[in-house]
Amino acid sequence: MYNPVEIILKKRNGYNLETAEIKAFITGYLDGSIAEYQMSALLMALYFQGMSETEIAALTKSYIESGKSLHFDSALPVADKHSTGGVGDKISLMLAPLAAALGLYVPMISGRGLGHTGGTLDKLEAIPGFRVQYPMQEFQSIVEQHGLAMVGQSSEMVPADKRIYALRDVTATVESPGLITASIMSKKIAEGAKHLVIDLKVGSGAFMPNLKRARELAENLVRTGASFEQKVSVVFSNMNSPLGIAVGNALETIEAIEYLKGKTLSDTKELTEVLVGQMLISAGLCQSQAEAESRIAEVISNGKALEVFRKMIQTQGGDPKVIEDYSLMGTSTLQIPILAQQSGYIHQIDSRAIGYALVKVKAGRMQISDEIDYSAGARLFPKIGDQLASGDLIGYLHANDLKLGEEVAKLISNAYQISPLPKDKESLILEIYTG
Amino acid sequence: MYNPVEIILKKRNGYNLETAEIKAFITGYLDGSIAEYQMSALLMALYFQGMSETEIAALTKSYIESGKSLHFDSALPVADKHSTGGVGDKISLMLAPLAAALGLYVPMISGRGLGHTGGTLDKLEAIPGFRVQYPMQEFQSIVEQHGLAMVGQSSEMVPADKRIYALRDVTATVESPGLITASIMSKKIAEGAKHLVIDLKVGSGAFMPNLKRARELAENLVRTGASFEQKVSVVFSNMNSPLGIAVGNALETIEAIEYLKGKTLSDTKELTEVLVGQMLISAGLCQSQAEAESRIAEVISNGKALEVFRKMIQTQGGDPKVIEDYSLMGTSTLQIPILAQQSGYIHQIDSRAIGYALVKVKAGRMQISDEIDYSAGARLFPKIGDQLASGDLIGYLHANDLKLGEEVAKLISNAYQISPLPKDKESLILEIYTG
Repeated sequence: MYNPVEIILKKRNGYNLETAEIKAFITGYLDGSIAEYQMSALLMALYFQGMSETEIAALTKSYIESGKSLHFDSALPVADKHSTGGVGDKISLMLAPLAAALGLYVPMISGRGLGHTGGTLDKLEAIPGFRVQYPMQEFQSIVEQHGLAMVGQSSEMVPADKRIYALRDVTATVESPGLITASIMSKKIAEGAKHLVIDLKVGSGAFMPNLKRARELAENLVRTGASFEQKVSVVFSNMNSPLGIAVGNALETIEAIEYLKGKTLSDTKELTEVLVGQMLISAGLCQSQAEAESRIAEVISNGKALEVFRKMIQTQGGDPKVIEDYSLMGTSTLQIPILAQQSGYIHQIDSRAIGYALVKVKAGRMQISDEIDYSAGARLFPKIGDQLASGDLIGYLHANDLKLGEEVAKLISNAYQISPLPKDKESLILEIYTG
Repeated sequence: MYNPVEIILKKRNGYNLETAEIKAFITGYLDGSIAEYQMSALLMALYFQGMSETEIAALTKSYIESGKSLHFDSALPVADKHSTGGVGDKISLMLAPLAAALGLYVPMISGRGLGHTGGTLDKLEAIPGFRVQYPMQEFQSIVEQHGLAMVGQSSEMVPADKRIYALRDVTATVESPGLITASIMSKKIAEGAKHLVIDLKVGSGAFMPNLKRARELAENLVRTGASFEQKVSVVFSNMNSPLGIAVGNALETIEAIEYLKGKTLSDTKELTEVLVGQMLISAGLCQSQAEAESRIAEVISNGKALEVFRKMIQTQGGDPKVIEDYSLMGTSTLQIPILAQQSGYIHQIDSRAIGYALVKVKAGRMQISDEIDYSAGARLFPKIGDQLASGDLIGYLHANDLKLGEEVAKLISNAYQISPLPKDKESLILEIYTG
């Protein structure tokens, strides 16, 4: 019998918890013998005192054992990607079909948007009829048969993480490397992925404010993966600007489809291809990033990647005609120009402010129960280092309410910090860490 | 409108909270809009980041404003004592009648025992019929008429502290100087005391492990008192041994009565008289500790202090015949000798272990709902520095179950660390701090 107060006290006083103590705390939390307020106190103590490698592995294991796991045939190259979340991040929609077209099996479990960041499930649900909830075994069968499925987290999988993540969100205990690691890794291990690439956003408005903190987290992620026989590589990507052009659900899905059609050339392409490259190299399907890129170019130009995406929409109940007719996802009545307020070079773009501004036109949500307007969002063209004259077009706000739309267009314009001195463009990929 | 998550985050990140933010958090907690798990997360963040003088005053004010306060005529010398809790601490029962006999007005609000420490209310309730729950106005009237009343905390007074204290207890967030200060001071300000002496226990098994930490806390206490026009003095007392001879409810009440009868000479007398001295000096009723002690000796030898105690028992519904006939409080069937296991000098006495051992014979409780056996307890004679031979009598365990009693007698004997080298006796009063 473990006393929850003594476990909190032990961690609060800076001692490492035993694996059995962590297990007992999680089990007690799930069966109701340990209260929410005790869990949140422990989470805050973990935030301040940090977590050892053993503690992180124990928490990850407890999360996994709180639910069911998928087990694929060990011969299958099962791989997945995780992103720490960004503004305009539609990479999953591009990467998953591409990876499957190149021979990987991708059991991708995604989340919904909350606050300033979007969620892959919302982008998929912009496609009429698209279904994201599946029982775990059916999910596994689809992946085995079609090479990929993109779904929401089943309540049967890592329920402990699901509950604790929700609690962290309302108790200011999200930003702990140990807690982040256990949360990310438990899902990705339970879904059966053997190869995992993590897109770790670094910069203003991102999970990790700087590269030093990001490297510590990456080390945790790679080591935790290793203790569960999962190969992990971490790509540090710059999150000082929104990713790509579109921010908003249908608009981002369109941008992803355009990429699969071979039409788009932007930062999203670069990041997607580095991430897919890491997955292919880890699984032994490619020897180098150059080889990966040439194979990616092949499945895009011959239409195979788009075909995999079409097939996935069909399999998951969606209307594949959206690929040819974007208007099936709905169109906003208004496209309001967003204009530069000064002349000069873009020094900073406050992605977080853009994300929050777009919540006002229902492109995102503050509460998980808030309704989404899939058609709402923005298309934003210039990047850091670009030169603009006052009054130049930054992009368009897509909305259905003029007054709100104009307010949000103004807020987005304010998010661009423009000043007269030239500013270098920034690299999107900062570093790749594989342990 | 304040966002609770942002308030937690702000403190977690090391910034001082505004008075309005603290007020909003407490108000929200009481009206249910802020959850228990958010309060416990904030408490843990406050534990780690500490609290400024302004934050402590704001929290104290929020606690006071969460309920009703007493307001005595400003001409009355209203004074009280608070103790941070000890083993065998029956000082309140000796001090309150003494102070009232010497012209102070004492609105004493006490608590119940929990864990290894006893509580004054339980000691009073060893007296048949003694009533400790009163509406606040009636409590005030009794104090005005008789000079003292000893009661439990009304639910009308500082309800925020009551709820938060219970939460701290189960979330390992008790030991924070700022939180401790607000909790102590809010009650003592709301009850209307103008002069407060605090018995701050220092040493193994006490609130404060060393004098340095105790001095920090004392500074907080004195400053917070000052910002509410209350004069506070802090007496640091040694808690390396149980206080006096008796530990257990009826046994401690008997020891207190014996003192008021002028029969006892022990550490309890020294501590009581220093504390009463501070109260008298603060209120301007005495100029020095020497004067206080001679006046104390007077009201004990002329029976006035005992008379005040008798009158209080009568007023609060108790049977004053207990003063002559201790058996009215019940007597344990067994008095089991507790024997020294080695020869040598007492180097340490583990008071906490003694307190917990006595819970087993129901002299105390682990949960507030546990029943108490008022007759159970121990009388323990030697102190640190005393010399014993193996087999010498340490004291007697009073219990009603032979098997349990023998086990507890053994545990208590184990709490005496005896070794051959001589050991100096220790001072009981370590220091007095008045700001």
